[in-house]
Amino acid sequence: MYLLENKGVTAPKGFYASGIHCGLKKNNSKLDLALIYSEVAGNAAGVYTKNKVKGAPIYITKEHLINKKAQAIIVNSGNANTCTGDDGLLKAKEMAEFQAKALNIKTDDVLVASTGVIGVPLNIDKIKNAIPLLSKKLSTEGSEEAAYAIMTTDKIKKQLAIEFTIGDKTVTIGAIAKGSGMIEPNMGTMLSFLTTDLNISSELLEEALRESTKISYNRVSVDGDTSTNDMVLIIANGLANNEKIVSKNNDYYNFLNALNKINVSLAKMIARDGEGATKLIECIVYNAPNKEDAEVLSKSVINSPLVKTAIFGNDANWGRILCALGYSGININPNTIDLYFKSELAEIKVCENGKAIFFDELTAKKILSKEEVKILIDMKSGTEAAVAWGCDLSYDYVKINGEYRS
Amino acid sequence: MYLLENKGVTAPKGFYASGIHCGLKKNNSKLDLALIYSEVAGNAAGVYTKNKVKGAPIYITKEHLINKKAQAIIVNSGNANTCTGDDGLLKAKEMAEFQAKALNIKTDDVLVASTGVIGVPLNIDKIKNAIPLLSKKLSTEGSEEAAYAIMTTDKIKKQLAIEFTIGDKTVTIGAIAKGSGMIEPNMGTMLSFLTTDLNISSELLEEALRESTKISYNRVSVDGDTSTNDMVLIIANGLANNEKIVSKNNDYYNFLNALNKINVSLAKMIARDGEGATKLIECIVYNAPNKEDAEVLSKSVINSPLVKTAIFGNDANWGRILCALGYSGININPNTIDLYFKSELAEIKVCENGKAIFFDELTAKKILSKEEVKILIDMKSGTEAAVAWGCDLSYDYVKINGEYRS
Repeated sequence: MYLLENKGVTAPKGFYASGIHCGLKKNNSKLDLALIYSEVAGNAAGVYTKNKVKGAPIYITKEHLINKKAQAIIVNSGNANTCTGDDGLLKAKEMAEFQAKALNIKTDDVLVASTGVIGVPLNIDKIKNAIPLLSKKLSTEGSEEAAYAIMTTDKIKKQLAIEFTIGDKTVTIGAIAKGSGMIEPNMGTMLSFLTTDLNISSELLEEALRESTKISYNRVSVDGDTSTNDMVLIIANGLANNEKIVSKNNDYYNFLNALNKINVSLAKMIARDGEGATKLIECIVYNAPNKEDAEVLSKSVINSPLVKTAIFGNDANWGRILCALGYSGININPNTIDLYFKSELAEIKVCENGKAIFFDELTAKKILSKEEVKILIDMKSGTEAAVAWGCDLSYDYVKINGEYRS
Repeated sequence: MYLLENKGVTAPKGFYASGIHCGLKKNNSKLDLALIYSEVAGNAAGVYTKNKVKGAPIYITKEHLINKKAQAIIVNSGNANTCTGDDGLLKAKEMAEFQAKALNIKTDDVLVASTGVIGVPLNIDKIKNAIPLLSKKLSTEGSEEAAYAIMTTDKIKKQLAIEFTIGDKTVTIGAIAKGSGMIEPNMGTMLSFLTTDLNISSELLEEALRESTKISYNRVSVDGDTSTNDMVLIIANGLANNEKIVSKNNDYYNFLNALNKINVSLAKMIARDGEGATKLIECIVYNAPNKEDAEVLSKSVINSPLVKTAIFGNDANWGRILCALGYSGININPNTIDLYFKSELAEIKVCENGKAIFFDELTAKKILSKEEVKILIDMKSGTEAAVAWGCDLSYDYVKINGEYRS
């Protein structure tokens, strides 16, 4: 099993992609419409935002996935098509219809996603006008363009592929993703589109995606507070020709492993590229009484604005971490907790049994000044663990969100 | 009933206060030790942080309030005396003992509070050395000094008094308070100390304080996520000589009204002086199915970093408000929600039935550029309402929390 860092959704057999500037973003040089296409319809699954306010594309994509089949995904950035009423639903449907016609496939085999500003009517004509060229541009080299076209405030394009074997067959999973507003991903839409040539039943594909999402994207900053438009979609076209996976056998877990690997890698890329972020923060809570507690605790820390600003300032202000554990809602015993900061440079213990211990502040500062910082939390009250990823809170976060509008 | 804006804890009969620089704050010109004293012991009550990690003073103050009596409150800033283990508890106890001796009163009639950095041993000698002068300085003019001495990153001192009548007696409530880290008050300790010359049973005093805290301090940004050291204390010394309140009669509700008025005013002062804040945001959710839902919804909005940054940028990005309502955990119907922005300038409707409507962006910008901005949310699904207060999220919040350490 190995990661292919320069490949994306077109790495698996039979997948094509493209990206184009259709005019939803004002800047002419920025791509804003992406297409992913499989030469045969595949089994497909989706995981969606739990927000009560949902973007129009969420409704259309869910509807089109009732039969658990899909062949294409069309995605625009620059407008979320959310809080746009019936008009928004009609336009999301129209996007799928137009794209289906251009590719000569069934409308309900086209999935739709949008990301960008909320509450502004979608200019569907710009999309319609661009669909012919977008479709024509489809190629096995198109993943990078598609990755650029789904970006909003992201600074770095996110694509990745992973190869593994099932029996004598090589199977590939490819992906493009976007994140953004990272201080609580409450609005910065998180999108991830996965392709694979694996041959698997739609039920198991869906279950694997759901499981994998839980320990990857849902561990980026807080979850539950998901955006109106978040979604993770996967299409499996079966062209790897492996023996079809229809039960939870070794092959299934092989696949789940690879899926987890690519999703966790993308989740970390999303966290690291959080709005205004200068650092990736990984928070590991271990020796907790159970997994659920560990998860809530790790997210409470990763999501604390005061922890985030302290890390931004290279300040080993561990009291803020203890405080975030204390208000998490979990019934903790502060008097058993040890805290460590760690980076490529070194590891340093800063708190023992919930109390201050002597540590070298300068060393701590150096550790925290690295681009990847780990917060290790030993609960000493069990055997379970969880990890969450986030980023620091910088001036640029305020700048981006005080000024950015589309 | 009227507010006395230049008075504080020494406004009620028989109360004295003082403030001094004892050396816990490095800057010599900054006061860091405060004392409030009543010439007779009074009934007293406290409301404390729900954080599982609690500062040492919380334990000692709770212990000293078992008999529901108190005569003095000593408060230091510059060190929270939290995560300091048994040593911290001993020192909090010692603070009370020393102060009691100096005033020649009982140790358990002295309440203790601390605010500042976590996990650093408290230099108790500096406090002990300062207590004689601090006690000597007590005066009816000392409220302002005490208000300064409890500040950390607060920019504005917070004191207030309110006068009302019960029968033919004038009753006064006085207060000093501090806030600070306002983006979720998860660490910025919120302290409020109230004095009154009211004659009331300790049970009803406690109940009134608890009720009043719920609709005032607990509505500032999010609650539940309270700091390790938050507390609200009140001493009622009875010197107003009103007929003692021992049941929930009109007099009780008169008092509760005045208490609510002073606490809500202080809560708004705390929100407005949030770290880095340039504006006070008031979020009113109305026509909700019930009070609890309205409260959760209003806090979800007031606490969203993306709403806060939008208001900082004078950006009428109402989609972020709808999103915060959507992820609040409350089962809302987005299709009945109307949104308005309001300030002294004007009111503007920006969303109807969960959908975009036309509004003049320039007018909206002007409305949002005022120092006090209201977000009005008409749920059109019931008759209940709640209000929450918060502040915008600015560059200075990041600066203060990325750099501030004591």
